[in-house]
Amino acid sequence: MLYDNLSVSENGHLCFAGYDTAELAARYGTPLMVLDEDRIRSRCRVYKHAMKEHFPAGSMPLFASKALSFKGIYAIMAQEGIGIDVVSSGELYTALEAGFPPGRMYFHGNNKTDFDIRFAIQSHIGYFVCDNIPELEAIEQEAAQQDVTQKILLRLAPGIDAHTHEKINTGRIDSKFGVAIETGQAEELVALALQKPHIALCGYHCHIGSQIFEHTPFCDAAVMMLDFMAQMQRKYGYQAKILNLGGGMAVPYTEKDPTVDYSENIRKISALIQKVCREKSLDVPVVLMEPGRSIVADSGITLYTVGGAKVIPDLKNYLMVDGGMTDNPRYTLYQSEYTVCAPEYMHDTPDMHYSIAGRCCESGDLIQENVPLPKLNRGDLLAVLTTGAYNYSMASNYNRLTRPAVILIGDEGPRVAVRRESLSDLIRNDV
Amino acid sequence: MLYDNLSVSENGHLCFAGYDTAELAARYGTPLMVLDEDRIRSRCRVYKHAMKEHFPAGSMPLFASKALSFKGIYAIMAQEGIGIDVVSSGELYTALEAGFPPGRMYFHGNNKTDFDIRFAIQSHIGYFVCDNIPELEAIEQEAAQQDVTQKILLRLAPGIDAHTHEKINTGRIDSKFGVAIETGQAEELVALALQKPHIALCGYHCHIGSQIFEHTPFCDAAVMMLDFMAQMQRKYGYQAKILNLGGGMAVPYTEKDPTVDYSENIRKISALIQKVCREKSLDVPVVLMEPGRSIVADSGITLYTVGGAKVIPDLKNYLMVDGGMTDNPRYTLYQSEYTVCAPEYMHDTPDMHYSIAGRCCESGDLIQENVPLPKLNRGDLLAVLTTGAYNYSMASNYNRLTRPAVILIGDEGPRVAVRRESLSDLIRNDV
Repeated sequence: MLYDNLSVSENGHLCFAGYDTAELAARYGTPLMVLDEDRIRSRCRVYKHAMKEHFPAGSMPLFASKALSFKGIYAIMAQEGIGIDVVSSGELYTALEAGFPPGRMYFHGNNKTDFDIRFAIQSHIGYFVCDNIPELEAIEQEAAQQDVTQKILLRLAPGIDAHTHEKINTGRIDSKFGVAIETGQAEELVALALQKPHIALCGYHCHIGSQIFEHTPFCDAAVMMLDFMAQMQRKYGYQAKILNLGGGMAVPYTEKDPTVDYSENIRKISALIQKVCREKSLDVPVVLMEPGRSIVADSGITLYTVGGAKVIPDLKNYLMVDGGMTDNPRYTLYQSEYTVCAPEYMHDTPDMHYSIAGRCCESGDLIQENVPLPKLNRGDLLAVLTTGAYNYSMASNYNRLTRPAVILIGDEGPRVAVRRESLSDLIRNDV
Repeated sequence: MLYDNLSVSENGHLCFAGYDTAELAARYGTPLMVLDEDRIRSRCRVYKHAMKEHFPAGSMPLFASKALSFKGIYAIMAQEGIGIDVVSSGELYTALEAGFPPGRMYFHGNNKTDFDIRFAIQSHIGYFVCDNIPELEAIEQEAAQQDVTQKILLRLAPGIDAHTHEKINTGRIDSKFGVAIETGQAEELVALALQKPHIALCGYHCHIGSQIFEHTPFCDAAVMMLDFMAQMQRKYGYQAKILNLGGGMAVPYTEKDPTVDYSENIRKISALIQKVCREKSLDVPVVLMEPGRSIVADSGITLYTVGGAKVIPDLKNYLMVDGGMTDNPRYTLYQSEYTVCAPEYMHDTPDMHYSIAGRCCESGDLIQENVPLPKLNRGDLLAVLTTGAYNYSMASNYNRLTRPAVILIGDEGPRVAVRRESLSDLIRNDV
């Protein structure tokens, strides 16, 4: 099986976190997002312990909550004693409502509105990760208005593209995020931040990509960031306390993907950072990382009910499910790979190949193509694995489909974490 | 200007449906979806009158409400006396709540759940557009259960690909929708439907694509469908009363796109249908069409507030707005073209080129690239035209962003049709 929390019962049913998925579907209905709470918590601890062991005091993971955002997930992160990153007033509000301590929140994003900045400062948010000059001015203005000194990090583009595995001219990295080191825009932002009376500049942030299986791109980024840190120290006498290396560690979606040893990656990144700091006579900074996908993706599966199969002779077989791009838009958006199985027939031979189609009136509404499965019929279940990240958080009401329920399986068994959306929810704001 | 309901005031502001967009943004906030109700109504009437003039009694347009679905839009369609197509219990429920008569509703989709079928029959829906055999069986079973005879059309694949402008082997048309004529699967579905005691087969449906600028693909489809109709009449003595030609007529998104004369297209399709029916000694069927985009797309614009610009030297300038793929995912999904303008500076020279980035923490969150605009700063407005279709209906809460308000500008001025989503709406179903 793809993960160690998956198993098959004697009657050939897929079990997830110890529970028969067919029983979960019968009890809670479909489409259904099921999350393994223990696995989420243990993944938090892997990051937390490795970062505590290998980096200076105060280093910790921040859960990138855009991957999966609802009250229950923030409650888990609060209990695990890690930080979070939020990217909107909506994520901030949800976290606050879950009792998450605002001091451990980092407000991200390329475009924070005036409302966001006001609401976050009023909420005593720990840090903004400031993206650009107009935003810095807006934070300074609001902090002055509220008569506080606001801690910030600056989002920099260190010129690393983790996906091409090349160092390229920073100024040419095509990203809407942050400011580039190589063009001098990063220095300009630092100099400006240091002048602002209501801003406390605490360090730098970068994010180099997602689904990164190796540690080397993070090491490359760390070198660039530490080099910039040393330059700023020489030039402005400003010693940054925090280095936030962003997120991006990968998760295997299929059997072909390698597994990732997060602890070992952190150890290697730490060794490199310590070496570079020695060489540059820098104090080793507090290190933050922002795992999202690698905390929750493989802790989640989605269960669907099949509506029917459709054979197009000599071309393709479609298998239609009661969800689709509305609860998992990642294949439609990025042709993302997923592992799909028939949770009631795990012992059966997969002698068919199906393209899994959602129920939206849109040709592109597919979840995966050419999947080996046993023959399935209307009423059978289908499971898609590794859906914990960027599925529920990206869900829409396209075609006025209601969003699935979310179930957390914890020590005391399964419980509803997010109720299934109702028909009346759909018209709540219609006048 | 792209449309005749756009104009520029003396102070250089963009006016939409006679209203200054800057005043609308100030009054209702951004991001804001603004709809021109008169234009929506007049587009309904163009279809309704042309179809009444050129096709037999009972012929009418059905608004494809997946393009734009909220209570107010169904109320307009009810008043205009046209039909609608719905693709989920959610659309059906919303239409019912708006007082739309169920007899003029057609339930579409490649995968109707048992719940959908039960709810629709209980609601006395006019027709199902039945997609496949397992669904036919499910409708028969539920109709028997409720002791009614349910009217249906059958969704067929006539083997026309409107986008390649080629007739290709029907059996090889790669679609999750309907059953192919050429493979014999369509005939099989007809024969089965005719045997079902609680099913009243009323005719056939096809849908050949979207953004079709010419009438010829519709004519090609009509020929295939009438030929099938004649075959079934000969073979089974079954005379279909209704031919539903689906949707797909185009809308210009940019100045490059041609305009479409919907009335003239309908006249040409009618002439062809009458000719073929004479040749085949068929009664001319009632004709239905399913415009969605061409009713609402160019009746809508979206207003954003700019958060800042970002210059990446020698590469690209980003302009960041307070919405993005959450309210308009069409560029991210399909690289769709849009016309973008600076509604407060319509008299200014567009001497910059900007890529319009949304505020999601996702690199692909773009609305359009390389747009000529005057230099804009934080706090300025941006307008994206032709957003009435497949924007609000596809909106998500990704990054926990709240969905925009929708404003309808009617005879009595602007009014809120859908309230802006609140922060507390986001956690309504969180346990």
